[in-house]
Amino acid sequence: MGDMIQDLPTAASSSSSSPSSSSPATRRNQLFLGTFVHSKTREALEYLHDAAVCVDTSGTIVAVETGYDLARAEAELLPRLGWEMGHVEVNVGRDGQFFFPGFIDTHVHASQYPNVGIFGKSTLLDWLNTYTFPLESSLKDLAKARRVYTACVRRTLAHGTTTSAYFATIDVDATNLLADICLALGQRAFVGRVCMDRDGLCPDYYRDESPADSLRKTRQTVDHIRSIDPAFDIVAPILTPRFAPACSREAMRGLADMQEELGLLAQTHVSENEGEIELVQQLYPESESYTDVYDAQGLLSERMILAHAIHLSEKEARTIADRGAKVSHCPCSNSSITSGAAQVRWLWDMGIDVGLGTDMSGGYSPSILDAARQAALVSRHVAMGLRGHERERAKLTVEEVLYLATRGGARVVGLRDRVGGFEVGMQWDAQLVGLPLVDEDGGQGDGGGNVDVFGWESWEDRVAKWLYNGDDRNTKMVWVKGRLVHSAR
Amino acid sequence: MGDMIQDLPTAASSSSSSPSSSSPATRRNQLFLGTFVHSKTREALEYLHDAAVCVDTSGTIVAVETGYDLARAEAELLPRLGWEMGHVEVNVGRDGQFFFPGFIDTHVHASQYPNVGIFGKSTLLDWLNTYTFPLESSLKDLAKARRVYTACVRRTLAHGTTTSAYFATIDVDATNLLADICLALGQRAFVGRVCMDRDGLCPDYYRDESPADSLRKTRQTVDHIRSIDPAFDIVAPILTPRFAPACSREAMRGLADMQEELGLLAQTHVSENEGEIELVQQLYPESESYTDVYDAQGLLSERMILAHAIHLSEKEARTIADRGAKVSHCPCSNSSITSGAAQVRWLWDMGIDVGLGTDMSGGYSPSILDAARQAALVSRHVAMGLRGHERERAKLTVEEVLYLATRGGARVVGLRDRVGGFEVGMQWDAQLVGLPLVDEDGGQGDGGGNVDVFGWESWEDRVAKWLYNGDDRNTKMVWVKGRLVHSAR
Repeated sequence: MGDMIQDLPTAASSSSSSPSSSSPATRRNQLFLGTFVHSKTREALEYLHDAAVCVDTSGTIVAVETGYDLARAEAELLPRLGWEMGHVEVNVGRDGQFFFPGFIDTHVHASQYPNVGIFGKSTLLDWLNTYTFPLESSLKDLAKARRVYTACVRRTLAHGTTTSAYFATIDVDATNLLADICLALGQRAFVGRVCMDRDGLCPDYYRDESPADSLRKTRQTVDHIRSIDPAFDIVAPILTPRFAPACSREAMRGLADMQEELGLLAQTHVSENEGEIELVQQLYPESESYTDVYDAQGLLSERMILAHAIHLSEKEARTIADRGAKVSHCPCSNSSITSGAAQVRWLWDMGIDVGLGTDMSGGYSPSILDAARQAALVSRHVAMGLRGHERERAKLTVEEVLYLATRGGARVVGLRDRVGGFEVGMQWDAQLVGLPLVDEDGGQGDGGGNVDVFGWESWEDRVAKWLYNGDDRNTKMVWVKGRLVHSAR
Repeated sequence: MGDMIQDLPTAASSSSSSPSSSSPATRRNQLFLGTFVHSKTREALEYLHDAAVCVDTSGTIVAVETGYDLARAEAELLPRLGWEMGHVEVNVGRDGQFFFPGFIDTHVHASQYPNVGIFGKSTLLDWLNTYTFPLESSLKDLAKARRVYTACVRRTLAHGTTTSAYFATIDVDATNLLADICLALGQRAFVGRVCMDRDGLCPDYYRDESPADSLRKTRQTVDHIRSIDPAFDIVAPILTPRFAPACSREAMRGLADMQEELGLLAQTHVSENEGEIELVQQLYPESESYTDVYDAQGLLSERMILAHAIHLSEKEARTIADRGAKVSHCPCSNSSITSGAAQVRWLWDMGIDVGLGTDMSGGYSPSILDAARQAALVSRHVAMGLRGHERERAKLTVEEVLYLATRGGARVVGLRDRVGGFEVGMQWDAQLVGLPLVDEDGGQGDGGGNVDVFGWESWEDRVAKWLYNGDDRNTKMVWVKGRLVHSAR
C-alpha cells in the first residue's frame, strides 16, 4: 500500500477484503497521484508518470493531468477544481506501483464457483449434466447461495474485477440475492437469472416450467434489481437465455421483446463445442446456423454478449458483426473442457468487439489477469496451425490482451464511455498494482506474490511480468465508481 | 501450518522462506502424521489417511503405516523403531492438509530467471539473441549472479520444487556459485555449466573458446561440486551441451566421453522449434534427424534429459526409447514462445519416460504445479487436433499430470528409487499442502491463496482444485532429504 495513502475509509470485515462502506453521501473528493497505465489503443498502452487523477464524490474522473507531485497538485490542481486539500482523500502510488483500470469479466457463472477446477476429462454436454446442473440447482438453498455468491464476489474483487456479467441460476430469490451481494460489496455487475425451459436437454429437476414461467421469473429479478439500484448504477439486470439447446423459441422471442421494451443487455452462449453445434442443428432445422437461431428470435443485437464463438463460420461472424453483437472470449474454459481455440484476431478482423470471460467453472480461474494470460497462450496455439504472416498476426501481444481485459470488455458490456480507461468523464473503476523488488541479497518481498522485479526492467517489461506471473497479491487496492471495495492486507 | 507441529528447527532469515539450517549431525528422527497423497501408478493417486511416516536422521523414510494417530504412533510405532518420543520431531498435518511429494523440475535455466514473462512475440532463435544471451552473459558479474540465483532457488523452493535440473551459464564461477546456493538453501539440484562453443549461432561475447575450453571448464564445475558435496547427496553436476546448433561435434563427443568416465547425467534440448530443426539439418547434413545428431556423438543414453521433443518423427521417438533417454516436457515454454504442443501420450506410448520442466524463462512460471496444469491444457490442445478415441486418450488427467510432476520427473533425473513418492527406503522430499475452507458467511481464509474449499468436496476434487488454482500460498512447508527448507509465513 502507498505509505502516503491517507484517510481511506475502512469497514469492519471478517473477510480478506476490507471494502469501504462509505455511501456516496459521505464520500469525499479523491486525488490519486503516481503512475497510471491504461490502453490508449488496442495495440498500445499509455504510461502516465507523475500524474494526477481527480475523482469527485460521484466517482467520476474530473481531471487527468501529468507533471504533478503532491505539492503542485495542492497548489495548482485542487484550487482549479475548487477543492480544499483538507477535504480531499489523497492516494499516492509508491515507487513501482501503478494504477490500472479495473478488469471486466464479460462471462462468469457465479453459481458454478464451488466447482472451479472440477471437470475431469469432460466436454460441454456431459460436463453440464455431471457437474453443473446439480450444483446450480442446489443454490435454491439461500444459505448455500449466500455463501457461494459471497465467496465468488469477494474472490473476483480481490483479483481486480470491477465489473462482472454474471449468470446466476433459474431461482429468482437466489438470483436476487446475488444482486444484493454485488451491491453490498460494491462490484459493478450485470446479474442474470438463467432462462432454460426446453424439455430434453434441461433436467426435470432444474428447468423453468414454461416460456411464460421463464419470462415471469425474469421480470421478478428485473423488478428486484430496480428496487435496490433504481438507476442501475452498480447492479443491473441482464436477460439470460442459457443457450439455444436449453431454450424454447417462445422464451427466446419473449426475451427479445422484453429487451426491446426495457433496453437491457442480454447474454448467452454460441458455438462452444462441436457436439453442441450438432445438437442445435437438430433442434433448429429451420436455421442455417447456430448464430441464425438467435438472429431468428430477434436476440442478435448490439446489446447481446455471445460467449465463446469458437467454431463460427465466416458467414456467422459476418452476421454477428452486422448486428453489432459482442463476443466474450473465455480461453481458460475453452482449453479446460476441450471446446477449441477461438480466433480473436479473426474476430477483430471481422469487426467484432471482444472481451474476456473467466467462464467459471468451465474455466477454473477467477482472475481476468489469468484470462488475459491464457488469451495470449491460446492465440499462440491458434498460430501454431497457421503459416507465415498469418501465424505472426494470430499471436496477441501483452498490450492486446490487457486491452481485452479492460476497454475490450467495457465495449462488450456497453460501458465503453464509463469504464476501462482513465479519462475525464469516466468513472473511477481501478486497481492499484504493486510489483515488489528483489533485494540485493536475492530476498523477496513479503507477501508480494510471484513477480520478481530486479530494478533494471522497463515499464513495458514490468507490465509483461505482471501479466504473466501476477496474481491477487499484486492487486493492492480496488475501487468501483470511486468506492474502495477491496484492500489487500 | 499444523497447530501441533512441534520442534521445527528454524533459521533466522530475511527472506520469505525460513529454511532450517540444522545439519545432519544435529537432526532428529521425525514423525509425520496425517493424510499423504502420492502417485501409486501413472493413472492413480493413492490417498493414505490417518497415516504415519517416519523419517530417520539421514532423511530416509523408515516406516509408512496407516491407522495411526499420535497416541498410537507413540505407543506402538516409535518403540518398534527404537525411537523415544521426546527425541522425535512430530509434524501433524491439520484437517484438510496433506503431505505430497516434492516437485521435480527437469528443465530450468536459473540464469534466465529475471526474464520470466519477457518474451514478446518472439520464437526460439530470435528469443535467444534478443533476451537470453545478453542476460546470461551478464551473470559473470558474481554479485548479480548471487542475487539472481538466490531469488530463483528461493522462489522455486516456495513452490514445492525439491529437485531441479538447472542450466546455469558458460561462466565457471557463477555456475559454481549456483551449486553453493542450492546446497546452502537445501534444494536438491543438478547444476550444469552450459557448453556452447560453435561459431555462428553463439555470439562472440558469449561462447566457449574451443571444444577443449568447453570440456576444461565443465571439469572445473564438476570438481567444485565434488568439493562441496562429495557424494552428490544434494547437489550434483550435470553435463550440459546447450543444443546441437550451439555445440561442435568435438565438444559433444568430449562430453559423451566424460559422461562415460564420470557416470554423470547430461541434459540438452531437442526438436523445440521448426526453424531450429531446419538449422540442425543444415549444420549436420550427415545426420538423418536432430535426434541422430546426439546419437552420433554418443550422447543419447538413459542418462540424457532431452527438453521439449515437440516435433519428433516416429523414428526419432523410437531411437530415444531404444536408448532409454528421457524427455522433459515444458508446456508453459512451448506455448509461450509458440514452439508447438508436445504429445505426452504419444511419447508414453512410444515407451519414453517424461517429466515436467518450467523451462524458465522460455516458460514464465516458476511453479511445477503450474507446469502440471499447463500440461493438462496443452494435452487438450493436442486433443483438439485429433478425433474420436485418440482425442479422448490425448487428454491428460489430474492424476497423470501430478505423476509427471513427481514420479515422472524422478525417473527423468535418475532418482526414481530415491524421490517422488512415499515408500520405505526413499528420501523425505515432500511438501505440506493446505487448502483453506470458506466459512459459513462466504469469507475466505487469510493468506490462503485462491483455492476455496466448501467442505463437501471429495479428496479427489480437492486435489483437482489444488492443481488448477493452487499456488505457493498452499505450500506450507517443504522438506528435502528430511531437512525443512521452506516454511510459509
